[in-house]
Amino acid sequence: MRFHTRKWVKPEDLNPNGTLFGGRLLAWIDEEAALYAIIQLENPKVVTKYMSEIDFKSSAKKGDIVEIGIEVVKFGKSSIVLKCEVRNKMTHETILTVDNIVMVNLDADGNSLPHGKSKVEFVKDRLGSS
Amino acid sequence: MRFHTRKWVKPEDLNPNGTLFGGRLLAWIDEEAALYAIIQLENPKVVTKYMSEIDFKSSAKKGDIVEIGIEVVKFGKSSIVLKCEVRNKMTHETILTVDNIVMVNLDADGNSLPHGKSKVEFVKDRLGSS
Amino acid sequence: MRFHTRKWVKPEDLNPNGTLFGGRLLAWIDEEAALYAIIQLENPKVVTKYMSEIDFKSSAKKGDIVEIGIEVVKFGKSSIVLKCEVRNKMTHETILTVDNIVMVNLDADGNSLPHGKSKVEFVKDRLGSS
Amino acid sequence: MRFHTRKWVKPEDLNPNGTLFGGRLLAWIDEEAALYAIIQLENPKVVTKYMSEIDFKSSAKKGDIVEIGIEVVKFGKSSIVLKCEVRNKMTHETILTVDNIVMVNLDADGNSLPHGKSKVEFVKDRLGSS
Amino acid sequence: MRFHTRKWVKPEDLNPNGTLFGGRLLAWIDEEAALYAIIQLENPKVVTKYMSEIDFKSSAKKGDIVEIGIEVVKFGKSSIVLKCEVRNKMTHETILTVDNIVMVNLDADGNSLPHGKSKVEFVKDRLGSS
Amino acid sequence: MRFHTRKWVKPEDLNPNGTLFGGRLLAWIDEEAALYAIIQLENPKVVTKYMSEIDFKSSAKKGDIVEIGIEVVKFGKSSIVLKCEVRNKMTHETILTVDNIVMVNLDADGNSLPHGKSKVEFVKDRLGSS
Repeated sequence: MRFHTRKWVKPEDLNPNGTLFGGRLLAWIDEEAALYAIIQLENPKVVTKYMSEIDFKSSAKKGDIVEIGIEVVKFGKSSIVLKCEVRNKMTHETILTVDNIVMVNLDADGNSLPHGKSKVEFVKDRLGSS
Repeated sequence: MRFHTRKWVKPEDLNPNGTLFGGRLLAWIDEEAALYAIIQLENPKVVTKYMSEIDFKSSAKKGDIVEIGIEVVKFGKSSIVLKCEVRNKMTHETILTVDNIVMVNLDADGNSLPHGKSKVEFVKDRLGSS
Repeated sequence: MRFHTRKWVKPEDLNPNGTLFGGRLLAWIDEEAALYAIIQLENPKVVTKYMSEIDFKSSAKKGDIVEIGIEVVKFGKSSIVLKCEVRNKMTHETILTVDNIVMVNLDADGNSLPHGKSKVEFVKDRLGSS
Repeated sequence: MRFHTRKWVKPEDLNPNGTLFGGRLLAWIDEEAALYAIIQLENPKVVTKYMSEIDFKSSAKKGDIVEIGIEVVKFGKSSIVLKCEVRNKMTHETILTVDNIVMVNLDADGNSLPHGKSKVEFVKDRLGSS
Repeated sequence: MRFHTRKWVKPEDLNPNGTLFGGRLLAWIDEEAALYAIIQLENPKVVTKYMSEIDFKSSAKKGDIVEIGIEVVKFGKSSIVLKCEVRNKMTHETILTVDNIVMVNLDADGNSLPHGKSKVEFVKDRLGSS
Repeated sequence: MRFHTRKWVKPEDLNPNGTLFGGRLLAWIDEEAALYAIIQLENPKVVTKYMSEIDFKSSAKKGDIVEIGIEVVKFGKSSIVLKCEVRNKMTHETILTVDNIVMVNLDADGNSLPHGKSKVEFVKDRLGSS
């Protein structure tokens, strides 16, 4: 699994008990899954359709740095299934895992659209060189 | 199921495609589950431990009013299990459902703490009259 | 008065003195009044025209749960007048009251538009059953 | 009346109808009143106690620049009464007026505290030169 | 230099160490520079092209009031160069300085556009009287 | 240069002209520089002291995915100097560059503190295996 995006847990991200607000974490994951799918499917119109169970294994506190990892589970015809792990950057302790996030590829009218992709691609390879 | 909290979908809540950002919706649900558990368990220190699969059935657009419903599934020893449905207030169309959200009751040190509750209580009844 | 929307006072809602920022509370009220008017008038284009005096009776602190109550004072020709009370969910102590919030019904060009409503309606009744 | 703080109306400040969200405007006013009172009373612990009726005279749209004016109406024993006008910076059209905003000076325990002030002071004069 | 906009440092503006988050401060400056340029150039379509070195001289803490000063350095053909200083309102201690912020005047297609301005103008003078 | 954090440009990130608000971008960079320095210096108390000139080479629009790259320029005694580039993830077009961002390592009292580091370290190597 590749971990890209990192977040610094700031006061605005805390719940009243002083730990990372779970809702903020879920929003971060949803954004990361969406942008990962957009990059792979080369289509900006992708929506979250389903998330499998979410296990909050540990928490984070103010000042912690968390990183979000995404991995492709499989390519469907008009969907892509992702796996997500969030961990503490300094200790690598797992904060949360989601085994399946289903993102659906849409056309301009909002209907599901086959994407024709079957394997992970890197943008730098698409661009030739970089 | 009782629907209490309502949200007006504003531009700040949208994803780049102009529909309600899924991450924002997940944050709203997590806050509603947390405050519902706090009210029932009469303890401000409650954390989200687990969410079962999340099914995004339909979306919402700018200007829509969504309402969030919560219902108790069961009371555990130191936890409470909730069920959630988000729907469009005007049409009652379902936007999202989550069958099990496990909230855990904690003591001051962050350890799980039995809450002694076994049924839904209303604040007005606790207060005598209101 | 019916209390629907609830808010969990998080660190991002506080003023520098550690109590609920009044401006945040006013924003919450304005959103609740707007969406209540939209539901009643069945028109998404409704604007706040006037608020009568606002009395901040008590404050709220981090972790408190506040609930916002709205009641119709009267239906005008192209307006609706609402009354608002915000209270602490756990103690029912009043935080703030506003006796008159005038919301105006607009047409597509932003001119006031008669709404033809004269009494409170419930969405479930409009929908037949739910 | 002196107009100091200016805001650029950005997409995040809009309601779903595309005009400035009233709640955002009220939050801006409350912050401006609070900081104005803090400067005059030389005490960081000041709270909003009361606002007289608020008249939304016109709206603002995306890209507009609004400026917020504050003027002292009178100094009470432990309070200060302010007047506020928000206007469009480019046209000077009035957007909103509030005739009386009562800010109360508090001690460390949150009780009202006489402030000993009776006239507007400028920070540069307090500092000698600047 | 004229100081207009003021900000009250709230919990949402802090970094995890409890001082004003530098990124928030930079966002405030960029907004102030943009709206100042818009006012002077009388064109809403102005973008930040360049900032010279930024020196963070001191910090601010929760509850501080900061004020942002802007001054015109020079008028280019299709640009305006601004200078910025942020200081603590109560002590006049400098928090940050930027010597050159280049804002570019654009036409509807996003190309640079001569603005025909060569000196600072006041809106009240443009309006005749106010 | 390694690019880690990615952002999806959402409506809340736009200026009134519909392109990425420069202030938002600066806030993203400052957070990324801060967390990168914290990881390298293994000290959560790090502040931004200086940024060299910032060149906004191109813009981003709603729905774009931008990625933020950071590279160490040099290790000072109690500081670390970073270089930053932000680019469009899909096209690799450069959006912004900053050649020198000086982050200072602080002790608990806020004084500069030698950090004893002289080369880039990877967390996985510190942890032994992962």
